[in-house]
Amino acid sequence: MNTQTPQSWEARADAHSFYGFTDLPTVADRGTIVLTHGKGPYVYDVHGREYLDGNSGLWNMVAGFDHKGLTEAAKAQYDKFPGYHAFFGRMSDQTVMLSEKLIEVSPFNRGKVFYTNSGSEANDTMVKMLWFLWASEGQPQRRKILTRENGYHGVTVVSASMTGKPYNSVFGLPLDGFIHLSCPHYWRFGKEGESEAQFTKRMAKELEDTIKKEGPETIAGFFAEPVMGAGGVIPPSKGYFQAIQPILKRYNIPLIADEVITGFGRTGETWGCETYDFVPDAIISSKNLTAGFFPMGAVLLGPDLTDRLQKAAEEIEEFPHGFTASGHPVGCAIALKAIDVVLNEGLLDNVRKLTPLFEEGMARLAEKKNIGEWRGKGLMGALEAVKDKDTKTPFDGSLSVSERIANACTDHGLICRPLGQAVVLCPAFIMTPAHMDEMFSKLDSALDKVFAEVG
Amino acid sequence: MNTQTPQSWEARADAHSFYGFTDLPTVADRGTIVLTHGKGPYVYDVHGREYLDGNSGLWNMVAGFDHKGLTEAAKAQYDKFPGYHAFFGRMSDQTVMLSEKLIEVSPFNRGKVFYTNSGSEANDTMVKMLWFLWASEGQPQRRKILTRENGYHGVTVVSASMTGKPYNSVFGLPLDGFIHLSCPHYWRFGKEGESEAQFTKRMAKELEDTIKKEGPETIAGFFAEPVMGAGGVIPPSKGYFQAIQPILKRYNIPLIADEVITGFGRTGETWGCETYDFVPDAIISSKNLTAGFFPMGAVLLGPDLTDRLQKAAEEIEEFPHGFTASGHPVGCAIALKAIDVVLNEGLLDNVRKLTPLFEEGMARLAEKKNIGEWRGKGLMGALEAVKDKDTKTPFDGSLSVSERIANACTDHGLICRPLGQAVVLCPAFIMTPAHMDEMFSKLDSALDKVFAEVG
Repeated sequence: MNTQTPQSWEARADAHSFYGFTDLPTVADRGTIVLTHGKGPYVYDVHGREYLDGNSGLWNMVAGFDHKGLTEAAKAQYDKFPGYHAFFGRMSDQTVMLSEKLIEVSPFNRGKVFYTNSGSEANDTMVKMLWFLWASEGQPQRRKILTRENGYHGVTVVSASMTGKPYNSVFGLPLDGFIHLSCPHYWRFGKEGESEAQFTKRMAKELEDTIKKEGPETIAGFFAEPVMGAGGVIPPSKGYFQAIQPILKRYNIPLIADEVITGFGRTGETWGCETYDFVPDAIISSKNLTAGFFPMGAVLLGPDLTDRLQKAAEEIEEFPHGFTASGHPVGCAIALKAIDVVLNEGLLDNVRKLTPLFEEGMARLAEKKNIGEWRGKGLMGALEAVKDKDTKTPFDGSLSVSERIANACTDHGLICRPLGQAVVLCPAFIMTPAHMDEMFSKLDSALDKVFAEVG
Repeated sequence: MNTQTPQSWEARADAHSFYGFTDLPTVADRGTIVLTHGKGPYVYDVHGREYLDGNSGLWNMVAGFDHKGLTEAAKAQYDKFPGYHAFFGRMSDQTVMLSEKLIEVSPFNRGKVFYTNSGSEANDTMVKMLWFLWASEGQPQRRKILTRENGYHGVTVVSASMTGKPYNSVFGLPLDGFIHLSCPHYWRFGKEGESEAQFTKRMAKELEDTIKKEGPETIAGFFAEPVMGAGGVIPPSKGYFQAIQPILKRYNIPLIADEVITGFGRTGETWGCETYDFVPDAIISSKNLTAGFFPMGAVLLGPDLTDRLQKAAEEIEEFPHGFTASGHPVGCAIALKAIDVVLNEGLLDNVRKLTPLFEEGMARLAEKKNIGEWRGKGLMGALEAVKDKDTKTPFDGSLSVSERIANACTDHGLICRPLGQAVVLCPAFIMTPAHMDEMFSKLDSALDKVFAEVG
């Protein structure tokens, strides 16, 4: 129950915040959690309560909430040059260095970078780039964008249109021309008696049938997260990207990897596309790029798109697009340090070291009779709650099972995220085995409590 | 001429940057300017060259490039809590305090705030809010967005569609349903013998005719900058907002003030809508909100839209929208300080004190035979270059007059911005009269040089 007094932090939050992605009945019942500081993977609220954040913020605070190297990098840059843009042929030295570094650590042997302030803006920018490119090359009718059900690409009107979640219907989205293919989640969508290989083949056939039906000459590009994130942590079925990439190539459709969540270590490699062994035509990056210390997104263009876009821009003497804070010097200085911290200071190594422990913990919880499957890759995972394990039947939606689990976790001092009927974990890369134990033990208790009520 | 060596900063910038809003022939000819640091209103490049930034970054670095109070606020918050989100009923204490402050300094007696990372995202969010609101209230067909020619609202697909600039045609924009009314620029668009009052009346009539023609039941909202910014610094004709607001009210169309540039002091009041004496239904804020020290945007909802959106969200238990870095604690701490710096530490006072000097300087330059008019408000202004002052005939586009002026300024150590055939100045709020003299003196020389070549 919400015990807030009129001048409590909770009441002050309520008075002036229009909440996004927030279950309003939960807030009405329990009050807003107002946080003041963090330590390692823990955050603390105004009442001094401690929470182990099993979600590392929003997948992004991978170096924890008080990483000294990152705070020092931020502070040094604030002392040096606290803000500039990247318009009119001017930019900061940090911006130049970050672009070099990004191409160096990318799967591309050469390429160019464009900065935004978020993953949403980066996806939105990539769509504009594709529309610009095709029009410049004499194919202005190539405007349709292919994505997948349960794919999540952001919240601008266009990136929300790319997102394959039904909740966007309240905005009258998707816009026309944004086509959602099937979600390659074998456990949920595989047919009776269908092998995983057959399922993958069916996904690929659907892609080719869709391209033919819509007309390849109307399609601008295909966007996919290597592992779907906010759609419920859904790794692709085996061989998925190997099955679809030749089809896209055949019809000259660029493959854009949305690596907002998977980029910089989450799946155990620098990029999710490395984990799944394909090279896309461009990469969308954000989140871990600054370890959550600064809002930043980036479009990394591979060689082919770089050359074609450069030509298109030169023809009209300017690419008329850019955000005020694109390539902000503080963001770039932080990103340079964050990349170093993840790749060279042991965080990626720790992801690899912790992954077996994470998998063991998930597998153990998945033995419960009301967990249908656990799935994931590296340090991202989901436990899918079900009413009946054999038939994979979900709980009645009105029971709000995953919300209840998340709230029970909060009561135990653990933050995890409800997504559909799944509960998602995506811990910080700095966790220790002891943190892992604490996380699974608290989640275990919460699951038992909730399943006893509803199971 | 570009004297870059292979490992020069200029070559490194070129190698990995896909430039936005950049005249590519200028970069090819002169090289990228790579900046390392700033001091007051000056910035310095890798070669130690000094530039007085007459544009305060992109209208936003209003406290200069090394403001101690702002860097200290940023650094303190990095030490305290360097990142969190505002989803799931959790947010930082800084976020709560900033929302309180924003409503306190807004023209609204109550309201709610939603955070984004940029003005583009804030406008895009407001469009989603309007579509969500109208659909929830049983009018899902209310989707058309009204803006004006030369209005600038950002670069996401939707905010670019709102922007009334022809360059967006290269993306196949605007999308359907984004309608651009005439630009209320009396000097340029007033008819022979038409008084300013008659011109304003014609603008208002066009609005009402458009509403009737499209059908008021298809229109979601009207967005306007109090003074158009990136469209060329265009103040409205006299009485414009007083003429149009009653029409919008009559047809129940929300009026959204895009105060990304005008907010927090640029026109001599906290808000541009105060300068022009109207109260909108919502305000879009960014730029000065953090004095350019952090990427942030905000939607400030007035009482009516707050109540209606709150009701709509409660009906579906969640407003399914939000950005990862919405309400970032460092951005909020910086914004709290920036608001204080502008409103309470003398910056707004200085804008008012400098405005007469700024106006004098502009008026003096406007006496040149190739300046058609100077226009502006507070510390934002434009000088419109013309081939013939009497007939207002512009120069031939191929002469790139405003680019030449900007480049000549750069050679003199002054940064100003070419926009169409105008040159724009929007100095930092910390300038002294001596900085003003330097700015106008350098611009004066540059104008004489270029007009001697082309005039």
